[in-house]
Amino acid sequence: MDSRGWVPATAGNISVRLPDGRIAITRSGFHKGFIPEDGVMTVDLDGRPEQSNLRPSAETGLHCGIYRRFPQAGAALHGHSVPATVLSRLAGPQVTLAGYELLKAFPGLPTHEAAIRLPVLENDQDIARLQARVTEAWDADPAHPPGYLIRGHGVYVWAEDMPGALLRLEALEFMLACELEARRLPR
Amino acid sequence: MDSRGWVPATAGNISVRLPDGRIAITRSGFHKGFIPEDGVMTVDLDGRPEQSNLRPSAETGLHCGIYRRFPQAGAALHGHSVPATVLSRLAGPQVTLAGYELLKAFPGLPTHEAAIRLPVLENDQDIARLQARVTEAWDADPAHPPGYLIRGHGVYVWAEDMPGALLRLEALEFMLACELEARRLPR
Amino acid sequence: MDSRGWVPATAGNISVRLPDGRIAITRSGFHKGFIPEDGVMTVDLDGRPEQSNLRPSAETGLHCGIYRRFPQAGAALHGHSVPATVLSRLAGPQVTLAGYELLKAFPGLPTHEAAIRLPVLENDQDIARLQARVTEAWDADPAHPPGYLIRGHGVYVWAEDMPGALLRLEALEFMLACELEARRLPR
Amino acid sequence: MDSRGWVPATAGNISVRLPDGRIAITRSGFHKGFIPEDGVMTVDLDGRPEQSNLRPSAETGLHCGIYRRFPQAGAALHGHSVPATVLSRLAGPQVTLAGYELLKAFPGLPTHEAAIRLPVLENDQDIARLQARVTEAWDADPAHPPGYLIRGHGVYVWAEDMPGALLRLEALEFMLACELEARRLPR
Repeated sequence: MDSRGWVPATAGNISVRLPDGRIAITRSGFHKGFIPEDGVMTVDLDGRPEQSNLRPSAETGLHCGIYRRFPQAGAALHGHSVPATVLSRLAGPQVTLAGYELLKAFPGLPTHEAAIRLPVLENDQDIARLQARVTEAWDADPAHPPGYLIRGHGVYVWAEDMPGALLRLEALEFMLACELEARRLPR
Repeated sequence: MDSRGWVPATAGNISVRLPDGRIAITRSGFHKGFIPEDGVMTVDLDGRPEQSNLRPSAETGLHCGIYRRFPQAGAALHGHSVPATVLSRLAGPQVTLAGYELLKAFPGLPTHEAAIRLPVLENDQDIARLQARVTEAWDADPAHPPGYLIRGHGVYVWAEDMPGALLRLEALEFMLACELEARRLPR
Repeated sequence: MDSRGWVPATAGNISVRLPDGRIAITRSGFHKGFIPEDGVMTVDLDGRPEQSNLRPSAETGLHCGIYRRFPQAGAALHGHSVPATVLSRLAGPQVTLAGYELLKAFPGLPTHEAAIRLPVLENDQDIARLQARVTEAWDADPAHPPGYLIRGHGVYVWAEDMPGALLRLEALEFMLACELEARRLPR
Repeated sequence: MDSRGWVPATAGNISVRLPDGRIAITRSGFHKGFIPEDGVMTVDLDGRPEQSNLRPSAETGLHCGIYRRFPQAGAALHGHSVPATVLSRLAGPQVTLAGYELLKAFPGLPTHEAAIRLPVLENDQDIARLQARVTEAWDADPAHPPGYLIRGHGVYVWAEDMPGALLRLEALEFMLACELEARRLPR
């Protein structure tokens, strides 16, 4: 993710659901391109750290929000690319992606003819309040895809396992880069 | 191809014609930046897999369409870049490339003064139908170059061997990137 | 820094404050992507080289200006990216960055709701005169962030230590890239 | 040069003047990111190969034109970037670069306040005729810098030695990238 410019500074974080139900997540304050061996810690489904002396990523609440809602979610990624940041700052409450072959990377979309509507949420340092808004967006649109944008901040995607989440993140970032290019062209 | 961003997610695929006429092609569902040893399989000229338990790339029919039509084609590449995706979504039925030194990478074009007209085809999950349209485009323009675009999807190129196909893909992607840059500039 | 295109040609330089108060800084005329073992030298707080036969970076005076003013500064970086160069050529006396999650990388900004105003200074080969203008900008805006731009030239950032300065440079370059993208879009 | 996208397909070439006055230059038809041990050959100042069975780069005549005219030139580079290609297609007979700190990489320009005027020549597969036009441009502007553009094709730069030529190419490509960015912004 670092080599593609998706985790600048200490931004971005990564989590997986362990077989026993605990969540392994990157710790706060590390550069995600250089994660040390002890840069990952475990929390419960409500984001409470098992080792009280370690601090999980500030956005652990958003990862846990995903795992609580979607029992089949096994891995979640938060990236922070230039296209996601710029587009989310310009967008309204949703970004619609249509007509891309790579939409096949999203579930329930057997063909490129479908479209996905990604919720775009206002950024908020109060993670519980932000997660409440995410849940609201999920409730409002039952066809929501496994991903959303936070304005000026980045993208969240999830899948059954880490390879699936990485493919989905790569497909999503590719389509966002295309959208940004297309918006740039004079009409 | 991965390091240049041409094979995001599971997109893109690669094939070569073997000396005995069979086609070796990447299997479905792998990330092409990390092809495992068993990530390649063989099919016949009609795309039928030799090992019935393996699934070839969904677009095997397009590779075989190339090998059936052009006896001299020895390698075919399908890439999936941001410029190819954005340009193909904006273009009409053809993209014309003219005045580039790199046009020399295409056959029958001894100088940069020539031009190539790349067909742009509507994307279709029905590969047989898509290949029928490709064949139609070849029939309609006898001067068609060894390459075409699929709208919102990517580019196909072929050549006598793999180094030749890679050079051609690199030249084509370079010129598409230039075209996208030029279209961006205010007129 | 080189792999991100931030130190083209001999541009860019790097310094740290040593425990005894001396400043270690890259020497003049080296490519900063390939710094040899003897490519770093030490100067005093006024930029005077300890080894009279070595020539420090031309901009040593700007590094020392930072260390003299900010006792807590332990590392300073000068980068030279395309976005910083283009934006600084277009900007007035300040560039304001607001609404970015990555603003958290700057001190005294607990949330993304704050904004930073980066001074933009006219380039000058007379480094003493340029440093005088930097000092003037610091005096004029007590809320100045730990960074500034020089027009057509690049960016300076500093922090308590080198990892902190690198994170800050990466966050700043990310936000400048977003700003440039946003300005490009037709309004 | 390859990792920066400056030598797509078989484009780009590299030469140095040997101590005995011969010119070592990359051979025709190789990808310059993967030069084999025997990918370099020697020619005399008029471009005649010493080994009659090897074919030098098609543009050997341009390299020799530089070495014949500038006795102090020790290395010459021909790159082929997207910004150089796009800008040269849009430009008139010259591209002027002004106000960049990196102009210091060019000789006789002690400060960033100077400007350089790069000749832009029409592309031509007749290399002798193209070199004649280059010579004409040099005669017409005694203040010409050690570099020029060929329309739709790329850039040539030279310097006393290879490290100097690489620095100059990097500085020039950086400034061309900045120019292209600046032209993109809506006015």
